[in-house]
Parts: sequence; structure tokens; C-alpha cells
Amino acid sequence: MIKVGIIGSTGYAGNEIVRILLRHKNASVKWFGSRSYKDMKYASVYGNFVELVSDTCLEDDIERLSDEVDVIFTATPQGLCSSLVNEKILSKTKIIDLSADFRIKDVAIYEKWYKLEHKSPQFIKEAVYGLCEINRQDVKNARLIANPGCFPTCSILSIYPLLKEGILDKDSIIIDAKSGTSGAGRGAKVDNLFCEVNENIKAYGVANHRHTPEIEEQLSYMAGEDLMVNFTPHLVPMNRGILVTAYGNLKKKVTYDEVKAIYDKYYKDEYFVRVLDKDICPQTKWVEGSNFTDINFKIDERTNRIIMMGAIDNLVKGAAGQAVQNMNIMFGEKENEGLDIVPMFP
Amino acid sequence: MIKVGIIGSTGYAGNEIVRILLRHKNASVKWFGSRSYKDMKYASVYGNFVELVSDTCLEDDIERLSDEVDVIFTATPQGLCSSLVNEKILSKTKIIDLSADFRIKDVAIYEKWYKLEHKSPQFIKEAVYGLCEINRQDVKNARLIANPGCFPTCSILSIYPLLKEGILDKDSIIIDAKSGTSGAGRGAKVDNLFCEVNENIKAYGVANHRHTPEIEEQLSYMAGEDLMVNFTPHLVPMNRGILVTAYGNLKKKVTYDEVKAIYDKYYKDEYFVRVLDKDICPQTKWVEGSNFTDINFKIDERTNRIIMMGAIDNLVKGAAGQAVQNMNIMFGEKENEGLDIVPMFP
Amino acid sequence: MIKVGIIGSTGYAGNEIVRILLRHKNASVKWFGSRSYKDMKYASVYGNFVELVSDTCLEDDIERLSDEVDVIFTATPQGLCSSLVNEKILSKTKIIDLSADFRIKDVAIYEKWYKLEHKSPQFIKEAVYGLCEINRQDVKNARLIANPGCFPTCSILSIYPLLKEGILDKDSIIIDAKSGTSGAGRGAKVDNLFCEVNENIKAYGVANHRHTPEIEEQLSYMAGEDLMVNFTPHLVPMNRGILVTAYGNLKKKVTYDEVKAIYDKYYKDEYFVRVLDKDICPQTKWVEGSNFTDINFKIDERTNRIIMMGAIDNLVKGAAGQAVQNMNIMFGEKENEGLDIVPMFP
Amino acid sequence: MIKVGIIGSTGYAGNEIVRILLRHKNASVKWFGSRSYKDMKYASVYGNFVELVSDTCLEDDIERLSDEVDVIFTATPQGLCSSLVNEKILSKTKIIDLSADFRIKDVAIYEKWYKLEHKSPQFIKEAVYGLCEINRQDVKNARLIANPGCFPTCSILSIYPLLKEGILDKDSIIIDAKSGTSGAGRGAKVDNLFCEVNENIKAYGVANHRHTPEIEEQLSYMAGEDLMVNFTPHLVPMNRGILVTAYGNLKKKVTYDEVKAIYDKYYKDEYFVRVLDKDICPQTKWVEGSNFTDINFKIDERTNRIIMMGAIDNLVKGAAGQAVQNMNIMFGEKENEGLDIVPMFP
Repeated sequence: MIKVGIIGSTGYAGNEIVRILLRHKNASVKWFGSRSYKDMKYASVYGNFVELVSDTCLEDDIERLSDEVDVIFTATPQGLCSSLVNEKILSKTKIIDLSADFRIKDVAIYEKWYKLEHKSPQFIKEAVYGLCEINRQDVKNARLIANPGCFPTCSILSIYPLLKEGILDKDSIIIDAKSGTSGAGRGAKVDNLFCEVNENIKAYGVANHRHTPEIEEQLSYMAGEDLMVNFTPHLVPMNRGILVTAYGNLKKKVTYDEVKAIYDKYYKDEYFVRVLDKDICPQTKWVEGSNFTDINFKIDERTNRIIMMGAIDNLVKGAAGQAVQNMNIMFGEKENEGLDIVPMFP
Repeated sequence: MIKVGIIGSTGYAGNEIVRILLRHKNASVKWFGSRSYKDMKYASVYGNFVELVSDTCLEDDIERLSDEVDVIFTATPQGLCSSLVNEKILSKTKIIDLSADFRIKDVAIYEKWYKLEHKSPQFIKEAVYGLCEINRQDVKNARLIANPGCFPTCSILSIYPLLKEGILDKDSIIIDAKSGTSGAGRGAKVDNLFCEVNENIKAYGVANHRHTPEIEEQLSYMAGEDLMVNFTPHLVPMNRGILVTAYGNLKKKVTYDEVKAIYDKYYKDEYFVRVLDKDICPQTKWVEGSNFTDINFKIDERTNRIIMMGAIDNLVKGAAGQAVQNMNIMFGEKENEGLDIVPMFP
Repeated sequence: MIKVGIIGSTGYAGNEIVRILLRHKNASVKWFGSRSYKDMKYASVYGNFVELVSDTCLEDDIERLSDEVDVIFTATPQGLCSSLVNEKILSKTKIIDLSADFRIKDVAIYEKWYKLEHKSPQFIKEAVYGLCEINRQDVKNARLIANPGCFPTCSILSIYPLLKEGILDKDSIIIDAKSGTSGAGRGAKVDNLFCEVNENIKAYGVANHRHTPEIEEQLSYMAGEDLMVNFTPHLVPMNRGILVTAYGNLKKKVTYDEVKAIYDKYYKDEYFVRVLDKDICPQTKWVEGSNFTDINFKIDERTNRIIMMGAIDNLVKGAAGQAVQNMNIMFGEKENEGLDIVPMFP
Repeated sequence: MIKVGIIGSTGYAGNEIVRILLRHKNASVKWFGSRSYKDMKYASVYGNFVELVSDTCLEDDIERLSDEVDVIFTATPQGLCSSLVNEKILSKTKIIDLSADFRIKDVAIYEKWYKLEHKSPQFIKEAVYGLCEINRQDVKNARLIANPGCFPTCSILSIYPLLKEGILDKDSIIIDAKSGTSGAGRGAKVDNLFCEVNENIKAYGVANHRHTPEIEEQLSYMAGEDLMVNFTPHLVPMNRGILVTAYGNLKKKVTYDEVKAIYDKYYKDEYFVRVLDKDICPQTKWVEGSNFTDINFKIDERTNRIIMMGAIDNLVKGAAGQAVQNMNIMFGEKENEGLDIVPMFP
């Protein structure tokens, strides 16, 4: 039985890790860390867990945690995990960090976009970017996982096969993303009040959202050379879901069948990626609650562009689900253990 | 392995039975009946099932079904199940009817409220009203289950312990219910369009909703004498969930502890009923996707009334989940097999 | 031209007063008071007013205000208006208080339910309860208006004609109300985040909501004797709208036509009250953005009860609209000046 | 007083024309045409109009209409207006067509994208494309207005000043649009049910949406040469609102001030276009119910692209509001008569 500790268990991502692990055969949450709700019953913070979780929230003591659990999930704001981690801790326990601290290899880029000093740059190189479908082998032996951001997960999975196979003009990529509001977290902010979000849509972080360099770094690996993208997220009046609509110029004429064959080559054996039938557009509702990524594309012969679409549940494949998927790989579990959740519709 | 057939598998309730049974260890859907989508891939009707269900929709042939499956779920409009069932079929297979056809023992009342002639009144007496927490023993040996309505399930579970224990004035009960829109089904009607429901709330079926006699009959059994209630449902702009707020006059002064003790007496050992802590009001979101019923109450000493509250997911405990719970009881399965779903929040 | 000052102009009710007065022919907002947003452009706090309002938020200085404006709207938390008002101010300017400070005549009841000491009880008697359809004559000459609460407005208008005409058992009244989330204000609270409210419904303030004594006091006047009610509000995932479903026992048999005649007697000449056609249930969407109250009823002969239903926009008839209606009456304006807004659908 | 007839008055756009004209000083709807609801009270089809509109729906008889009214709005499906219009009618009355029939000058392109034979191509040349801010002079004397589509209105207003001033690479334009559900109309379709749209987002009409050639034709005029765009609409779970996020490559380095000056040059004197302050992203909620178009932009120096954003209410500036704006121009009314509606928030 894998013993799990969560630092930041009372945020939406932490709460989702708990939901998933409650039905995991070989893992169990032993430590519900929470600064804000310390000493409160976890089920009083999240009423869905009444009679399912009897634990009380504990302080975020990573030292004690590293003695008591096999793996620590840090579902915390940027800068916290990197300020806590050290060699002693990593020698005793594995860490899956849901924040951005270890996602970007170039510390200068991290510090510029996040406006934070990185507190433990010595671990950046070792950290594995936990996009499981791409880095599965490295994840297996990792001590420290940088769990990917929600937008990068959906964007990269939608785009990278075409980039890797060389059919996309690497400098033409535009990613227009739409997110449910749970991505903004459970902090009490006017901008996230029901009345501000409902019956409304807006872009935010235009040309400066912090997921941009993460996407660029990963896509650059695929392209084999540096590239930059435009990435624009939008806030949508729904709880869960990310939809990515990405645009790229085609380097040559391609047919539907050729592109379909590329996606199949990369995803045919991937349980969590579903390439949809021709002309079926992904819908976020079709993946809700699950760890699936639904993908499709459309070639526009008139403009010689391709439109790539992807849908995920931002709290599952975009956060907690992928974190558990990483844990499963690291501990030799079946990759979809606890994650074979059927999407809920409607 | 229990072989399952569904007549009406492409409605929202049918779709929910499929979602649940996909994770049931000992049951499997063998027949996806659908009049509207015959010969279409089931996963093309409900995109959430892509790569999870490969079956094609079949016609609603109950004769063939009764030879091939162990249990038939009829998730169909009122009047259909009662026109199909006969002794030969019941001798070969069990039927769990999600419509109202066999819920009401007095056929005259059924025909009056439903404005339909009942086609097989000879089976009404035999049919077991499948509110599992109340009729578990009868369910075990039933051939034909009348799966309760969504509003009655939530209303009865919230009220009956107090009625049975004699603290409620039986003639004072008022039930004000609020339902998500999935209860209205997947039929294409202007009234259920997004733009008509969103940012809106209204009552409907005031003083004549067809769940009224079903609630009255069951509560009358508890009270030991006939009673009538006021029942008013409202349409709420959300997909799932029923919240019941019920009011009753107290026959005598009671304390919080006394009432709590009554609820505990009836529900302490019930996996699917959660009586919440003092002063915590049930929220539909806390049971979403699960088979739980959350219950609480508040005594108003000023007016000598008690307010009883209950919350369910209308598609799970209010339809598909309770149907599977009945199946589990009938076939000797663990009662929560396939139903130990953790509610999803947010 | 009536010069208007608003204390608390950056809450949702204050913002709605601004929206309405921008199209009022003879009134103009001269002072946009705001503690939280002092010195910021009003249109930067509420983007809907870009190019329509060029003013800057000012401090809440009631002394200066009383010199500069003809009427002050206080759209502030309970306790503030009563701590500011004094004879000198009232001698110079009129006050329309949207808080509860002057709604309840019995100061002991106010202090018990609001858990506040009342700072100027000497003005309670003078203050006029500004439910215009009932107290129009008193409003005309008032210096200080207690603008009614949102739930009381909708509840009282739905019930009082039947109570006054003596057909209701005064001790049987149960009010089950449903409100959009703007009623909770613009404060940053976790409970009002989009993800907590969306796809969810719950009761709150059960048996102890502070609008209860306000409703009881007003209905007692109508009944000619003291009465108590049960009042239960619910939070609905929509921005605007209150729906009241009220239940009462009939003291004698009445027909539809008799009850319809009573409502018509009271409301036939009221511009802002619309009694709907038989069997048409009020919908909050049909009054959205307007100052209308839509009303209807249904007699349940079986239980000898009557169900009374009312719908308003909580920010208009439930707050800002009624406040402007009071201003119009006080200043001899046409009662619907600025308020002849057509409801917006969908 | 301008006498108005509406063919298709019971669709969402028709209903919105009625809402607007009820507060127009010099226009009045005399004919509420409706095929589906003939002989029914208009206020029974749209409950918001109770006690405001007492008319009954009439048949869609354009011959009689042309004798009785000064202007006809056709808020009908594609193909209907072009099958009704003829020289005799146009000699007696003006027509403002809200369908696409006369928007596209090249009839072959119309017929290809709309898959319809055009029934009166002889009027296409005469018809004026009623994007008022651009074609105001031509509108003045028009007999037949092609009222622009919702997406084209928002897209063109966001993009065309930059195109006209030559700073955009004309072949680089990508338009990613998001629309509320009212754009899909009031037809009873499963895809537009509440439960299918709520908590969901998807793209549709990818690379083949029929607003594409309309946008291309108008932008080509601005660019002075033919161009093609990628246009992708998305369905958002909200009633009203369109948000356009458009991307273009810059032909040369430009500063914020330079681009701002261009927008100001075109829109400074336009009542209905609001260019927002630096870094403020348009939100659909800020224009809800109004005829405003909110616009802003962001230069991405890294990629040398510009992101242009626009927000409208699809039923107002995207349909009924712009139609009335056209009527005002044609009849010499103040351009914002009836349209000086303050956006409603929240």
C-alpha cells in the first residue's frame, strides 16, 4: 500500500487527489496537509467526503511527512515546493509537485515569468516533466516530478505529434484555450465570484500567461529547435474543463488520412488519449471527471492551416489525475489504477 | 456475470445505467436498446463512452431480450413497460422498471394522475416498490421492481422516519422540491433549451405533479393511515441534483437530539444515506455523481414546525443508481457494488 | 433635476441604482461613494459603465453629501446608516436606506435578529417602510425610507391581499424562497465563488434568516394580528431573480375566480405588479432587469391549501428599483420614471 | 411614427427587436408575424411582455405588410427573405433582412456556403451591408439592408481599422470566436438543450462556418485585395454574448500608442464602439443587453503578432440592435434612439 501525503489538500486540486485515491486499490492518503483548515475535519471542508474521509487536516510539515509517507503531492502555490525540498527529503520520499516550480529547465525563464526567485535550482535538472504519454520512461525512476500545467497538458498533447513529424510550421502556432473556473482555485477573489463569471466570457493573461514558456519549452523539444507560440486563455462559465483550439500552418499538403495516421501512431496504445472520429469536435463534458484527453483536427485546404483541438478535465488530466498517473508509473502500478473513471454526462 | 439489457438506453437515465455498470465487477450490459438511435454506435450518441463502449444500439425487442439477459432495465416513458411485460417474460428474466407503471398500487389513482390506461394491472400487486432502504427484504426475491421516482426517493427518505415515529402531524406535510434539468429527459423541447432554463427558475406541475400520489402512498404506509401532501417541484438551472425542503408540524415538543436519534436509528447502518452534522444544510453538489442521499433537519421552536432537507443526484439515487442498487440486492451482490462512487466537487 | 448621492455605490445594489438613474429624466447621481474603491474611476470598477460614467469614487462623507444632494441612497451593510443619520442631516436631505436598519419597528426584535445595537432608534418610528404598492401615501412625505428587503418584497406582495381579505389561516404560512447569487453581494467569500454555487443548490439561514421578522411584521399589519411564518431561502445558480413559493391553509372554500378577483382588486392599477393568466407560473427570467413583480396562485382542493407564487429581480424590485420608485414618489415624479425597463429574455 | 412589421417575430432576434422598439420614441411594431405561433398572444409566447404587448401573432403576409408598415424586419431562416422580396414590395416599404440572403455580393459564394439557390439575385447589388459604423452613408438611402451576422459584426469591427491602415499581414488572420447559445435560435434541438450545453464547451463549424465568406468579403474591401481567414466559433454555456479573439501578424513594428491611435481614429466618435483602456480585456457581460461593441488589443513583441479582442451582445449589436440602428439611420432618427440601453451587470 502506497502511503500518500498531500501538502495543500484543501485546494481544488488537492481535493481531487483525495477523490481519486479513495478508489485506488494500492494507495491511501495518510496526511491531509492544509494551512488554512488545520485541525478541521477534512469532510467539513469538502462535504462530498462525509462518511468517506474521517481524517483531520494537519499542518504542512514536510520533514515529518517524508518520514511517514512514500510520496508527497504538493498542490500548493508557486514557490512553496521549491522552498521545502532538499536532498534529505528526496532521499526518503518521492515528490510530485503540482506547482510550476520544476517544470521549466531554464531557471532564468522561470524567474522572469513567475517573478519569483527559485529556491532550489539544483533540483531542476533532475526533475522529470511528468507528461506521462511523452516521458513515461523517465517518470519510472524519478524522485521528483514536475506535474504539467493544465493548459500545457492539453496544448502539448494536441499539437506535438504533428510537430514531431514535421508537418507544422513551427513559427505559426497559435493556441486559443478556454478553461472552466476551477482552474482559478478556491481563493476568495471578487473576479471568481459566481456573479462575475456566470453569463460572461473574457480572455486573460493575453501574451503574458505563465503557461506560455512551459508550452514553448516542451514543443521546442518536439520540433528539435526553439519556437515561440501565442497562447491566450479564456475564462468560461463552467466548473471544469479545458478546451484548446490550436492553429498551425502546414508545411506541405496533407490529407485527413495522413494526419490521422500520425495521431494514431502516437496515441493508438495510449489509454488516456482518445482521437475522435472524423469531424467530431471534442467537448469538455465528454471527459468530465475522467483522465481522458480527447483530440481531433481539421485541415483547412483554403488557408493551408490545420486546426487542432483537445479537451481535458483541468482538475484530472490537468492536475490531480495526471499526478496519480505519474505516481502509478513511479510505483509500478497499473497506469490507470484509480483512474479508470467513466466520464459523467450530462 | 449478470447479463443486462436496457430498453431505452439512450435517454439520460439509460446512459447513467451504462456509466455505472461499466465499473461493476459482476454485471455487463449486453443489449443497448434504443428506438431513436437503432443501428448507431452507442458511443456516437454519448461521446463520453468513446473507446469504452463499442456496442451498437439495438431495437427494443423484449422477447429476444428475455432469452438473452438476466435482468432488463426499462428506462422508458410511462406506459411502455406495462404494455410489454407478461408472465412468460417474467418467468425468464427479472425486470427493473424505471417508469411509474408499477409504483402505485391503486390502478385507478395511476390512471387518473397519468391519464393512461394500465395495460397489465395483474402485475401491480407483485411488483416491489424498490426504495431499497425501506423494502430491502421484498426486493431480494422480486421478479419485477418498480424503481421509485426521483422526487419520491428524496422526499420519502427525508420524511419517513419522523412520520413512522409519530412526531409529525400527518396532514401538515408540504414538500418544496428543486430539480436539475436532466430530470426532464433528452427530448427536444423548447422549454428545456439552454436559453429557457439558464438564469431562470420556475415552479411547474403545481398541485398536480404525478409524483404526488406516489409520495402519498408510501408516506401513508409509514403513517399507518392515509395522508395527503402538497408537492411543488421547481426547475433549477443545473444539470443534476434534487433538493427537497419539506415542512411539517410537530405533534409535540422535541429536541435536536431526539430527532437526530430517530434519523440515526433508521440510517446509521445505511451506506447510501448520510445524516449531516447539526446545522449543515445538504447541497446537491456534495452528492453529484453518487448514490448518496444527504439529509438534515432544523426544528423551528417559534412555529413548532420541523424543516426536513434531503439532497440526491436525480440520475443516480433518483434513477439509475437506485436501479442498480436494486439489481445488486436481487442478485446477491454487495449492495454498493459499482455504486461506491465518490461525489465530485466542484 | 434631483441630485442623488449614493453611499456604497460599488456594491451590486449601488451599481444597479446607477444603471437605472442613467436613464432617469430628472435625476442624476452626483456622488459615487465607496469605501473600497475611493479615488478609482467608477467605470473601472464596473466595466459596463465605460463611456457612460466618467466620475470617480468618493469617500462616504454623509455631512458633505447632505449639503450637496437632494437624496442619499445608503446601499451599505446593516448598522451603517443608523450610525450616520441625525436630525441635521434629515433636515437637509432625504434618505433612502437599502439596509435593514429602519425596517423593523420593534428595536428589540431588530437587535435580536441582527445581533447589532441600533444606533438611532429615535428615527425608527418616523421611517416609512417603502413597499410602494402598500405605503404609497406615507412615502410621499417621508424624510427617511426603509427600503424593503428583497425576500420580504416578493413574499409580502405575493401573500398580503389574501391575508387582508381574510381567506388565509394566518398561522399556516410557509414561504420557500429561491434567490440568485447577486443577493449575497460582491464580497469575496469562498461560499460565493463560481465553483461553489454553479451546479448546486442549498438552503441557508433555515429558521433564522433575518428577513423573517420583517416579513412577519408586515404581514401582521395585514392580518390585523400577530403572526409567525416559516421562511426558508435557497441559493440558486443564477445571477438575478427571486422566486417565492408560499403555502397557506384556506379558511374556507374559494374558487379560482374569487381569488383572482382579490389579486385584481389590489393590483389592477399597479404598473409594477402583473398577475399572470391562469396556470402560468411566474419565471424569474420574465422580470429580469425590470421592476416588475409577477404573481400567480394555485388552489389545491385536495389539501385545502393555496400556493402563492411571486417572481422579482432581486436587484431591481428587490433593491435598487424599488429605491428609485420610492424616490420618484417622494419627489413627485412619475412613479415609473427611469423604471419602465422591458424585461430581457433570454 | 415609424410603423414596423416583423416577419419571424417569435424567434430570439424578433423578440429582441420588440424589446428595443417598445422604448423607441418614434417607432412602433404594428405586425407581429409568426408562422409557428399564429393567432396566439405575443405575450403568451414571451412572458416578459405581459401587460406590455397586447398584440396577437399574425401570419407572415409580406404583401399586406408592405401596404401597412414603413419598414419590415425579416428575422427568418436563410432563403426566406430572398424568396419574398420583389420590386413592388420594395417600392412601398423598406426591408431590413436579418438573415444572410443579401450579405454576400458574389451569389456563387452564397449558394456554395449556404447550399441554397438564391431566389432574387437581382437585388443583391442594391442591398446595403448594414454595418453602420462602416457603411453609414449608404444605409441612409437604402431600400434593402443586409443586416450583418453576429460573428462578422464583432470580427470586422475588431479587425478592420488595422487592416485598412495596413499594419496587418492580410493572409495571417485567425479569428477564434465564442458565442452564447441564443445565437443557435429557439428551435427545439437536442444539441441546444440545457443539459447538453451547460458545463460544456466545444468548437463547431470548424473551417466551414457560413459566416466565413461574409467576414472575408468585408475584410477584403478594407484590405483592398482578396484575403482568406480562419474562423472558428465555439458554443459557450451562457445565453448572450460573443467574444472574438483575433490574431494577425504585424507587417512592421508598432507601439501600443500607434495602434491605439488607429482605433481612436475610427471609433472616437462612434457611440456604439468603446475602445477600452490599456490591458483591460473585453468581457461579454459588460455589454449585455446593449448595442455596444467593446474592443481592445495586445501586441506580442515576442512573436510579432497582435491579438485583437471584441465583445458584443449577439442579440443586440449582433442582430436586433444593429437592425434598429440601421432603421434609425434610414429614417433620419437619432442613431441611438431606443438603443441607449445601459449594459446590465451582473
